[in-house]
Amino acid sequence: MTITITAFERSPDGGKGLARDTRVRWALEEVEQPYAVRLLSFAAMKEPEHLALHPFGQIPTYQEDGLALFETGAIVLHLAERHAGLLPDDAHARARAISWMFAALNTVEPPILEFVTAWLFERDKPWHEARLPLVKDRVRQRLDQLSVRLGGADWLDGAFSAGDLMMVSVLLRLKPSGMLEGHPVLAAYVARGEARPAYKRAFAAQLAVNNPQAAG
Amino acid sequence: MTITITAFERSPDGGKGLARDTRVRWALEEVEQPYAVRLLSFAAMKEPEHLALHPFGQIPTYQEDGLALFETGAIVLHLAERHAGLLPDDAHARARAISWMFAALNTVEPPILEFVTAWLFERDKPWHEARLPLVKDRVRQRLDQLSVRLGGADWLDGAFSAGDLMMVSVLLRLKPSGMLEGHPVLAAYVARGEARPAYKRAFAAQLAVNNPQAAG
Repeated sequence: MTITITAFERSPDGGKGLARDTRVRWALEEVEQPYAVRLLSFAAMKEPEHLALHPFGQIPTYQEDGLALFETGAIVLHLAERHAGLLPDDAHARARAISWMFAALNTVEPPILEFVTAWLFERDKPWHEARLPLVKDRVRQRLDQLSVRLGGADWLDGAFSAGDLMMVSVLLRLKPSGMLEGHPVLAAYVARGEARPAYKRAFAAQLAVNNPQAAG
Repeated sequence: MTITITAFERSPDGGKGLARDTRVRWALEEVEQPYAVRLLSFAAMKEPEHLALHPFGQIPTYQEDGLALFETGAIVLHLAERHAGLLPDDAHARARAISWMFAALNTVEPPILEFVTAWLFERDKPWHEARLPLVKDRVRQRLDQLSVRLGGADWLDGAFSAGDLMMVSVLLRLKPSGMLEGHPVLAAYVARGEARPAYKRAFAAQLAVNNPQAAG
């Protein structure tokens, strides 16, 4: 089986690992599957050929023999269901780990996306300074709740799972802003994710594309 | 097997079917599983008892013998994987339908959530009028792309699936604003979803809770 994913030819974050291909690379490394990467320019992402793979003109996509998928969450779930390493064996524990994947993507990430959008794309707007505290409060509410739930545990529900992979990836978006620093429980959780050998390999692989000099 | 979900004692939308329990009710109706509903006040949603079930203090939750889940996407996927009616049999087609579930929740819903937040909670802010067109443009971009992909088809990928259930549910959030009217392909798609007997039963069930007079 040959797996091919797509990624930015040049990620807007310059290699911080925040583009969504890093999530898929991480999952592939956790389940020890080799993969090829096809790099795309922003122009190529809007071409019919790519839109046929990804209706919203984004990366990553995932192709293996006869199957084409888009959406990071779906790709990670597909890998997690077919290979050992990202979901527990027990059926109930699996369903709970999948709950955490959806929680990361549909409950925790939306306010973070709103914050990142305000931070990156509304910085020059007259309302930016007055509005930012509101947006940060919405993020903080989720961080508070997540922090309480995690408590003293290493991972969200037993052993590391696809739920943790996704939650750590979502929280990593906050790192450049310093917002995680007010939540030491979550900062330590994210650091545990970053310390995993599979994450390190995924990060290095995207860095080699996006900032070859820093990758050395 | 006894299934119990939670829902608002009184939904903020007054029975328009936009609270997330409607998505789970719809899935339960599609797969023909009976269920009980436990109604919660806003105060009860913040109590430790509920936070143990749902770390973010929201509805719906899902309980069956020995299993407790939160997150609408995870609950719908759990039902779809265990009962006929929401996912195709073919493994590749199943994975693609799940891609559409994630696309609804992580690509289409976030800009819609941002719009709804601006619409409901930033209406009285001095920046509201100047900012709203930006927020609407982000939604419109997704609607344009989705509309192109759907084209003349009834559903996103072959027969109706959990992907359509979720996408229609996400798009329904735009109905009160009139924003769907500029996208006739999507308005017709949403109408097809609303016309399904399972959706009608789910809608009626939440209306009976939230607006008994309208439910008659």
